[in-house]
Amino acid sequence: MVLPAPLFEAVPNFSEGKDGEKISRITEAVRVVPGVRVLGLHSDPDHNRSVLTFAGEEDAVLAGAVTLAKACAIELDLASQAGEHPRMGVLDVLPFVPLAGSTMDDAVRLARRTAEILGSLGFPVFLYGAAATASHRRDLPDVRRAGYEGVVERLKDPRWRPDYGPHMLDPRRGAVAVGARPFLVAFNAFLDTDDVEVARVIARRIRESSGGLPAVKALGFLVGGRAQVSMNLTDLERTPIYIALEAVRLAAADLGTSVQSTELVGLAPLAVILDTARYFLGLRELEAEHVLETRLYDPPFS
Amino acid sequence: MVLPAPLFEAVPNFSEGKDGEKISRITEAVRVVPGVRVLGLHSDPDHNRSVLTFAGEEDAVLAGAVTLAKACAIELDLASQAGEHPRMGVLDVLPFVPLAGSTMDDAVRLARRTAEILGSLGFPVFLYGAAATASHRRDLPDVRRAGYEGVVERLKDPRWRPDYGPHMLDPRRGAVAVGARPFLVAFNAFLDTDDVEVARVIARRIRESSGGLPAVKALGFLVGGRAQVSMNLTDLERTPIYIALEAVRLAAADLGTSVQSTELVGLAPLAVILDTARYFLGLRELEAEHVLETRLYDPPFS
Repeated sequence: MVLPAPLFEAVPNFSEGKDGEKISRITEAVRVVPGVRVLGLHSDPDHNRSVLTFAGEEDAVLAGAVTLAKACAIELDLASQAGEHPRMGVLDVLPFVPLAGSTMDDAVRLARRTAEILGSLGFPVFLYGAAATASHRRDLPDVRRAGYEGVVERLKDPRWRPDYGPHMLDPRRGAVAVGARPFLVAFNAFLDTDDVEVARVIARRIRESSGGLPAVKALGFLVGGRAQVSMNLTDLERTPIYIALEAVRLAAADLGTSVQSTELVGLAPLAVILDTARYFLGLRELEAEHVLETRLYDPPFS
Repeated sequence: MVLPAPLFEAVPNFSEGKDGEKISRITEAVRVVPGVRVLGLHSDPDHNRSVLTFAGEEDAVLAGAVTLAKACAIELDLASQAGEHPRMGVLDVLPFVPLAGSTMDDAVRLARRTAEILGSLGFPVFLYGAAATASHRRDLPDVRRAGYEGVVERLKDPRWRPDYGPHMLDPRRGAVAVGARPFLVAFNAFLDTDDVEVARVIARRIRESSGGLPAVKALGFLVGGRAQVSMNLTDLERTPIYIALEAVRLAAADLGTSVQSTELVGLAPLAVILDTARYFLGLRELEAEHVLETRLYDPPFS
C-alpha cells in the first residue's frame, strides 16, 4: 500500500449532465493527467450536471482541476445551458478534500493555489468552506444563492467581490466556487421493519438539523421493502460512523426494532476503517503503519 | 495502496541470536533481494536464535528465502552452536504465510518450490504445516522433536525421510523445516483488575487447549500492574479477533470485571481490519476495493 502524503480528493460539479460526448471529452481530459486517479463520475440529466471524483497528490490534483476548468470552458456554454439545479458556472463547484496524510489546512492551501490559477484563466472565483475568506462566504448555498442569473449583479457588491479573477463575467463560463471540506461518507442502516415512518422518526432524532448529532444529515426511506435510515456524515472528526450507528441502534431499540445490516456507499478512506476497528476493539492504537500492507512499500523496519 | 496479488510473508528462524555481525550480514543479504521487504527482526541471545520477517510477491519471497539459506550455511555452524531452544539446523524453520490476494494453497506451492531448491542446495528438508506430505509431519514440534542431535538417526527412519534433499546430514548446517501456515496475530486484552488469577481463569476458558475457541492460545499475565489476557490467534478464519474479544469480554463480565483496553502486537493484514469493521458495523460488504487508498493505484473507475 502506497500512501504518498499528502493525498487529496477533488469532487468538482460541472454544468453538463445530458451530452454524453461532451461529458466523456471533459472526463478524459482529467483522466490522462499524470498522477490523477478518476474514482467516480455521476451524471444527472435532470439537473443537467455531472459530479466527477478524482484523487492524487497535491500537484496532480491541482493539474487535474485546472485541466477540467479549461475543458469545461471549451466544451460548455452556460448562456445556452439550463438545469433545475442552482449553478453559476460551467465549472460550478470545486471542493478539495484532505485524504490520508493531509490536513484541512493542506486542502485549503490547494484550494487557494487552484483558485489563483483559475482566476488568471479568467474565471471569477469565490472561495468557500474551510477556504472561505469571510464567514458569510463559508456556506456553499450562500455563495451560490444568486445563481448564474444573479452573479453579474453580485460581482458589483463589495461583500461578494471574487477572491480571484475578473470582476466582470464571461457569460459563457460564468463563475466558480472553489473550497475545502472534510470527506463525506454516505452510510445507510437497514431496519428490521418495513415501516418507513420508523426510519423517518429515527432520522429526525439523529440529524443535526433537528437537534441530533453534529455533521449528520439523515432521511428515512423504504428500500427493497425495508425501512432505511440514509445518512450523510459530513465531518467524521465530529461524528464518526460508529457514533452515528450507535445512535441509530439506540433509537431503533427504543422504537422496538433493530438495525439488520448497513452499507457504506462509495469509497471509505483507510483512516475511517481504522478508527472503526479501534473503537469497537478498544485498541490503544491503530494507525496506517500498523497495517501490514502499508509496510510493504514503506522504508524497511529496523 | 498497491496490493500485488498474491503477497506472501516468510518468518524464518535461524540459529544465531548472539553474534550481531553475523546476524546483520545474514539479514542484509535478504534485505537487498529485489522486491523483498524486511518487516521485522527479533534476536534472542538466550535461545541463540533470530526470527526474521519479510514479505513480497511469490518470486521475491522465494529468492529471499533461498538467499537466507545460503547466508546461514556460510555464516553459521550448528556443530559448534548451542542454545536452549529446540533446533535442527542453521536455517531451522521456514514458514510461509499467505497475505492479501493469496491463499493457503498458494503458500503451500511456494513452500514446496522453496523446499525443492533448498534440497538441491544440500539441505535435508521436512515439509510441515499445510505443506506437510503426511499427517504425522504436520505439527512443527513433532517434526523438530529429535532436534539436531537426533536428526541423523531420524533421517534413516522411512517415516522421517526428508521431502527434499540429501538423506545424509551436513553436520555444519543440519536440516530445515519448511512449511505453510496462516497469519498469526498476537492480541492482548487488559482487564480492569490487578488480579492476575482472573486473567488466568479467562485464558483457560477461551483457549483451545482447554476446550475453548479453536486456534486460540491464551495465557494470563500481570503487565504494568494490570491483569492481561495474552492471546495468539493462529487461524483467523476459524477464530477472528472480534470473536476472541467477545469471548474475553463475556468471561470478564462473568467474573465481575471488564476489558479496559486491547493491543495488537506487530502488524495486522488489511483483511483483518476490514473483517473487524464489517462485523461491528454490520456491513453487508467491505473489501479492500472499497478502501479509497486501494483505488488510487488500481485501474480507474468506470
